[in-house]
Amino acid sequence: MNTTQTMVKLILDRWEASMHNCDTLLKELSDDQLQQEAAPGKNRGIYLLGHLIAVHDNMLPLLNFGEKQYPDLTKPFIESPDKAVGEIPSARELRAIWDKQKAHLKTEMDRVKAEDWFGRHTAVSEEDFAKEPHRNKLNIILTRTTHLAYHTGQLIYLK
Amino acid sequence: MNTTQTMVKLILDRWEASMHNCDTLLKELSDDQLQQEAAPGKNRGIYLLGHLIAVHDNMLPLLNFGEKQYPDLTKPFIESPDKAVGEIPSARELRAIWDKQKAHLKTEMDRVKAEDWFGRHTAVSEEDFAKEPHRNKLNIILTRTTHLAYHTGQLIYLK
Repeated sequence: MNTTQTMVKLILDRWEASMHNCDTLLKELSDDQLQQEAAPGKNRGIYLLGHLIAVHDNMLPLLNFGEKQYPDLTKPFIESPDKAVGEIPSARELRAIWDKQKAHLKTEMDRVKAEDWFGRHTAVSEEDFAKEPHRNKLNIILTRTTHLAYHTGQLIYLK
Repeated sequence: MNTTQTMVKLILDRWEASMHNCDTLLKELSDDQLQQEAAPGKNRGIYLLGHLIAVHDNMLPLLNFGEKQYPDLTKPFIESPDKAVGEIPSARELRAIWDKQKAHLKTEMDRVKAEDWFGRHTAVSEEDFAKEPHRNKLNIILTRTTHLAYHTGQLIYLK
């Protein structure tokens, strides 16, 4: 295994482990628990789940995996705070999307060759990338991994 | 910048940004707020702060930076749950340790050459490392970064 492959494995393993932790937790939480606030006056579990899905959906265009699959979730779960939008999908619907999205992201990520992870993501121009080569696709995985860990630390309070 | 340097920057930048986020939050919280539970029946802010310090202290031997500086914090903040140990340091004392530790870790980390980050950490044998080269020093930084993000997501509930 060369340095490039080692580094890709390092970061993808951490993403996978963080997804697994969150996924295991979600399976332990009931739909009723997801309707609760993680702490008094804070976001509900269902909002945190929708937020994670919406943020992960945006990884598709950033990583050149295609268009967003759930653009309707951006408004209620990224652009709006919890309880600001009246109609949001049910816990059951969001769980189904989470499972489908997890599988889809894994399929797409498995297809990327090790060296291609060092290519630029779509939000950085070729010019900027020449000066800042760390703004690559792996960086998208890394920042979404810490984002996921941050909110998993909140979701666990619903247990 | 070659691939090795790019990868090191990628991961160290994420650690630095996560430390900065947590540090900024800690400065916004009063000592009284740190005495509160992050959510009803959950860990207090002061326990989370002590826990982060104790976990980061253990990075020193793992990264071959020397012995732990605060071995007395392992029992109350890693081996015991919150409120199980009667006497723990005050918020003021823990804040002082946090600042000192942050500077010390940065000094030590700045000294490591890019290629040395790909060397094994001290908890993996040479034999295992030959088979699993991703168990390197960078992986310690990465796992502690997601750990830090997880608990920062909880500390923010004290605001």
